[in-house]
This record gives sequence, structure tokens and C-alpha cells, in this order.
Amino acid sequence: MANSSTIETLLNHRSIRDFTEQQLSEQQVDQLLDAARQSSSSMFMQQFSIINVSDSDIKKNLVTITGHPYAANNGHLFIFVADQYRNYLIGREKGLDTKLLGETDRLLGGVYDATIAAQSIVTAAESIGLGAVYLGSILNDAAKVVDMLNLPRLTFPLFALAVGYPASSPELKPRLPKSLTTFNDQYKIPDNFDGILDDYDKTLTNYYATRSTNNRSETFREQIDRHILSSPKKRRDLYKVLRSQGFLTEA
Amino acid sequence: MANSSTIETLLNHRSIRDFTEQQLSEQQVDQLLDAARQSSSSMFMQQFSIINVSDSDIKKNLVTITGHPYAANNGHLFIFVADQYRNYLIGREKGLDTKLLGETDRLLGGVYDATIAAQSIVTAAESIGLGAVYLGSILNDAAKVVDMLNLPRLTFPLFALAVGYPASSPELKPRLPKSLTTFNDQYKIPDNFDGILDDYDKTLTNYYATRSTNNRSETFREQIDRHILSSPKKRRDLYKVLRSQGFLTEA
Repeated sequence: MANSSTIETLLNHRSIRDFTEQQLSEQQVDQLLDAARQSSSSMFMQQFSIINVSDSDIKKNLVTITGHPYAANNGHLFIFVADQYRNYLIGREKGLDTKLLGETDRLLGGVYDATIAAQSIVTAAESIGLGAVYLGSILNDAAKVVDMLNLPRLTFPLFALAVGYPASSPELKPRLPKSLTTFNDQYKIPDNFDGILDDYDKTLTNYYATRSTNNRSETFREQIDRHILSSPKKRRDLYKVLRSQGFLTEA
Repeated sequence: MANSSTIETLLNHRSIRDFTEQQLSEQQVDQLLDAARQSSSSMFMQQFSIINVSDSDIKKNLVTITGHPYAANNGHLFIFVADQYRNYLIGREKGLDTKLLGETDRLLGGVYDATIAAQSIVTAAESIGLGAVYLGSILNDAAKVVDMLNLPRLTFPLFALAVGYPASSPELKPRLPKSLTTFNDQYKIPDNFDGILDDYDKTLTNYYATRSTNNRSETFREQIDRHILSSPKKRRDLYKVLRSQGFLTEA
């Protein structure tokens, strides 16, 4: 079977949350951005933007918002933005009615484009020995991020991505078996769902208990239950923030 | 500067829409799924599923929905699903109130996870000489796709991905320059926005006019204006379909 160093890279993905002091060069950042730029775009509307964050005040605020010190530590920080504002400017030139750009479909297009681009950066980075971590937790206060980055109407900050030289080498984190996540032609939860989850709970608990840092005792079910039961307060305002940015206009 | 075959692959991305008759082996599909599976997941909620589509009736319907014959031709077809239903089942076991799983934040988590996984498959496939194309156009009738794939509440079909042996070798499609898409610390449309777009319009028009297949005459601005002015009718129902699947409950 054909194989490649790229597939090896993907199969060995782990999130890296601490980086050495060595900074990415401008050329490296530029190369990562080029990899992102050539990636697929929904209807070729190129509906995303990237903000490179280096300002120390913004970084401090991001640490507060995310609760993660690594939002400010060393690694290069990108913020990915779903962006229909640029396309709005194009439509406005001709005086078009741009209301379609605020509809759910166009928001999804922006989310796809930004996420595809981000994952290209992650894979590119890992292929040259760098590490990366997504910070979805910027959504703990999306309105503040909008304000800090001066994001106009029809844009929305989705997540940050930190990339740097790994200062740790975490173990591979086991995923759900494909029998629970991959189906043929029809969505179908397997009859032995509970038994498969029992096995996976054991596997994941063992991983959390024995990994070299940040040990804890938790099953997958317990982790999901935790996220079902609570969410940071302002994160429950996402719908409102999206609406105030001009998205989800069909409501 | 460090470089890698992975970065070369990413910089050479083009969507492949026609495939030879050679089918992917089961092992190849499995390897692509493994690459997807190890990718990052928002809060590690593993909130996506993949449907392998081989049923000829489903494929025929997808050709009708998408308008693309390549939805049925040769290549292996994956459909990516944002999925909180599996996590709902976990919460239900303990009788938890699962309403958080329907909120906008959890929908976004599912979209991120599915899109990250899909882009890992695209890059893995391209690294071993395969080609791929996203089909966002399954959203031209999302309700029908939900029905065909038997998708339960708290799931939503995002896009399809066709992967196969390339039967063509399209030219590289030029993207917007980074000056319009990448900013430092603050979102800021450059003062010479129109001039930069004029240059890009020329570049893209030349690409469309001279590429070896499917020539057309269109600038980037014209293409965006077209998508601002119209959208397939049922695609404007996405918000409703998401709501009927149990998402966006804050409205």
C-alpha cells in the first residue's frame, strides 16, 4: 500500500501546548500562510481571514479569555476569522443587495474555509517538526475578541492556532474506534454501542492516568457529561454575537 | 528554511473533479480514515461522523442535488456530518439535561471537527498521488440528505468529499494575495483595496481564460457578485434544517 511521510505526520498528530523560546522565522510563517492560502475554498469565495497576533496586550487578554497561558507563550499565534466582509465590499461597489452574505449558508462557507486553511497550517507545521494547538476557547468571550481585533460586520473569530517548536512530546491520545464514527450509506449507531464505549472508556482512562504530564482520572463518558452540563457563561452568547455581527439573519 | 514534501503537496493543491476507473483499495480508505481520526477535536468531544457512500441510489440523488456528475463517478465518496447525537446518547444514559448540545457553540464544534478531519483526508490523499474535491453543494438540499442517510437529531450533513485517482491535471488556481486576507493584530482592509483587486481580477480572468478545460470569462468580483445575488432555493432553508435537526436552539 502506498504510504507517505505526510500520512505518517497525520497519524502521529498530538496537540503541542508548550513551545521552546525559539521563534518561527518570518519565512516559516509566510510558508505556512501560503499552504493555507492554496487550500480549498467553498464556491471559491475565499471567505476567511487570518490575524497574526503579536501585540502583548491582546495576548494577555487572550490568556484571560481562554484560561490558557500558552495563548501568550512563545509560539506564533494565528486567529482564524470567517469573513464575508471583503465580499460585502465587493458587492457594495456595485450597489448590490448583500443580504445573502448574512445567511447561515454563507457563515458555514466561512467556517469551512477558515478551518480547512487552519488544518493545512497544522499539517504543514508538523511536517517540519513544529507543533500546534487549536484554541477554540477564544469563544469564551467572542464579543471581546471581535472588539480587540477590530473585526467588522460579517466577520467572526472562530479559533486561534498556536504554532511553535515543541517543548514536550506527549503520548498519542486514543480516539473513538471507527465503529462508532464511520458508517456505510446510512447513519447507524451499532447495537453494542455501550460495550464499545466501555472498552474506549478503559483505554482513555488508562491514557489519562499514565501519560507523562497533566494526569487525571476521567472516562470519555465523564468528559462528555461535563461538557453537557456546563459551558463558560459568555460562550452561551455565541448566537447573539453571531447575530450582532450580521450572521444567521434568518432567525 | 526547512521544507517538506507535505508542504509541497499543500502548495500544489488543486481540486480534482474527474477520476480514473481505478478504485481506492479498502486499505487506502482505511488509512485515510485513520488520518482523519487522529486529527484535532474541539474539547475532545469527537463530534463528527463520516458516511462512506457507495449505494447507487444515494449517489444518483446526490448528482441531482449537487448538479455534479462527479458525485457519482468513480472516486470514493465520504459525507462529513457534524454529530452531537453520539454525545447526546452518552448524556441520556445518566438522564442529563442535554440542551447545551443543541446550542450554537456545539454546532460550531461539530463543524470544526468534521472539517479538520476532512482536510486531513485531502492532504493524506494528495500525498499519495490521489486527488480530491469537496462538494459543499450537498447543502442544495440538506433536508433530503438528512433523510437519505437516516441522520438523527443533533446531526447535520456538512459536505461530501470525493477522492480518487486523478484523470486530469488542472492548472494551479491563483488565490487572493495575502495583503487582502492576512493582517497583523487588527483587521484592516488596505487602502489600495481596489487596486489590489484589479490586479487579482486580471490574474484570475487570465487563469479562467487560458486553463485547459472549462474555460470561462469571469473576474473574481463578478464571481462574488453572482454568489451575492443568488443561491439555490433550498440552500436558503439551511437555518430551518439546522433548527429541525435540533441545532441553533437559542433563536
